[in-house]
Amino acid sequence: MADAVQPVDAAVPPLGTHAGQSERGSFGDRVAAAVHRRRSQLVLGLDPDPARLWPAALERAGGTEGGPAERAARAVAAHCRLLLEAAGDQCVAVKPQVACFERLGAPGWAALSEVVRDAAEQDLLVIADAKRGDIDISARAYGQAFFGHTATPFGDVEGLGVDCLTVSPLLGRDSLAPLVQAARERGSGVLALVRTSNPGAADLQDRELATGETVSEALAALVDELGAPGVGAAGLSDVGAVTGATAPQRLEVLRTIMPRAVMLLPGIGPQGASGRDLAPAFAPGPAGGLVSASRAIVYAHEADRLPSHPPSSSSPSRHSAAGTPSRAARDEAARLRELIWGLYA
Amino acid sequence: MADAVQPVDAAVPPLGTHAGQSERGSFGDRVAAAVHRRRSQLVLGLDPDPARLWPAALERAGGTEGGPAERAARAVAAHCRLLLEAAGDQCVAVKPQVACFERLGAPGWAALSEVVRDAAEQDLLVIADAKRGDIDISARAYGQAFFGHTATPFGDVEGLGVDCLTVSPLLGRDSLAPLVQAARERGSGVLALVRTSNPGAADLQDRELATGETVSEALAALVDELGAPGVGAAGLSDVGAVTGATAPQRLEVLRTIMPRAVMLLPGIGPQGASGRDLAPAFAPGPAGGLVSASRAIVYAHEADRLPSHPPSSSSPSRHSAAGTPSRAARDEAARLRELIWGLYA
Repeated sequence: MADAVQPVDAAVPPLGTHAGQSERGSFGDRVAAAVHRRRSQLVLGLDPDPARLWPAALERAGGTEGGPAERAARAVAAHCRLLLEAAGDQCVAVKPQVACFERLGAPGWAALSEVVRDAAEQDLLVIADAKRGDIDISARAYGQAFFGHTATPFGDVEGLGVDCLTVSPLLGRDSLAPLVQAARERGSGVLALVRTSNPGAADLQDRELATGETVSEALAALVDELGAPGVGAAGLSDVGAVTGATAPQRLEVLRTIMPRAVMLLPGIGPQGASGRDLAPAFAPGPAGGLVSASRAIVYAHEADRLPSHPPSSSSPSRHSAAGTPSRAARDEAARLRELIWGLYA
Repeated sequence: MADAVQPVDAAVPPLGTHAGQSERGSFGDRVAAAVHRRRSQLVLGLDPDPARLWPAALERAGGTEGGPAERAARAVAAHCRLLLEAAGDQCVAVKPQVACFERLGAPGWAALSEVVRDAAEQDLLVIADAKRGDIDISARAYGQAFFGHTATPFGDVEGLGVDCLTVSPLLGRDSLAPLVQAARERGSGVLALVRTSNPGAADLQDRELATGETVSEALAALVDELGAPGVGAAGLSDVGAVTGATAPQRLEVLRTIMPRAVMLLPGIGPQGASGRDLAPAFAPGPAGGLVSASRAIVYAHEADRLPSHPPSSSSPSRHSAAGTPSRAARDEAARLRELIWGLYA
């Protein structure tokens, strides 16, 4: 909400920083290099549910110090670390769902910081799935929280330092600009919600505008525009899109509108998209599409018990996923990595 | 992002809880009672910038324990407490901007919890300005973070326990439903972004759909629909709207579509709406519109130095706002409270 009084420093900063001004290189180039190096487009989703952690995480977290929040947060961090150890080397990035940490309060936020550090140490890109979007000083505060730092009389406070943040474009250009700017300055990027994979996407995103395009297509045009000054040598920009479209023709249209965007896609499998559906994402190259999976990997050891995953004699690789959570996660991640890599090749 | 595998418990809960099932009464009734009791529709925005805290907050926070984040978070909490002490009794609610706390990491989140508790002790409603919006398990996780609790093997972890949360409706009905449900169960509410006050609102919210209404109007219809089962005895529902529309005819249209929604409005004053503009908000009664102000109050002692607040001999009450930050804040809040109360009367 804008207030009656706008302080002098509330102006939205211009999108003046161009890709490559960061010492680390541009986000698009960093994604392209990481995909090439790790031969993977798989993104490990981290949505830890404290009631469904791996048993080994509860053991490893140990100790009885602190209240429920502190203990649960330690266990959540341990669970994510085990998951990283098991499946991290099959992936190019991790995607912590911020809501799952925030519900544990301050200790949850500390666990999130730890997970971000752990993933970075393992050379994984970190995509904070937070779907933030706000205006002027608030947008800049989120930029500080996720990409930058905050000046205080006691010294600078570093933000999470993620490589990428999912953002909501509902509030328009001037709400995204400060986040894009904060990301760009450090070679990071944002992924704007363009077409999500839930049924509710039909309520607004699929609606047709008077000008003929859908809301999603209008958002895609905004993504392309904001990302234009941030296109790196690999041809990918630092403003990407969450495109959970399962209909291949829809993804094709969005790709035409955003030829240089990194697309974050939902997992493939029984209730996700099929391989062919995702093909348009890879038009700019193998790093054009990042495919996320979380529950499919973390609960792979329970796969036979999930109603949406009936045991099937026609998919033998499913059966090798049985066993310990850690081994099952690694096997399932390896299977998905190969499957997705094969889509581009 | 949906994953390939949906666990059994991932279904969106039905919106079965009706207003009044909470022991505290419905959100609409609680807002109506609070507005009546406090004779105020003023919402105190809390957007603490660690670099611009009141000097007394820095003194009060004291101590050199901890790093910059801990010290800044203590000072931020002290600043908010001073602001509450100064201006709280002129207000009906506080609206902490979550981004401003999140940028201080875990200590920032702890400060936010403290501010929520302080405000509740002062009998103020708490509106967390977080603009959250996500799908299925993530939406429910945000519901736990802000309204409910999270089950863990170590006991339940309580969420922030706010009375209201701003939410983003871009992802549609099924993304809002879990948040509405979590709020309704405890007599809390949500305020969905319908028309924000920033220039970027034109990029999407003001666009006309093929069916003739604007995106904002479509969102308003969704607000009315989701709030229908949550209308209390006072005629206000538990799904309200952020309506930063400054054009009176636009607010009038939105009010027609959402006759029972509590509207959160931007501040009135030099760069905000004029009093007459806000009139449609109060059609359902004095609690139909809540008017937020943050910088106008917290920086009231600097009012003369702000370019948008030129000293003017025609507004003598402005001049009484000079003096200590605390006194200036109280005077400005009192002035705004009366001004807004007068709009309805």
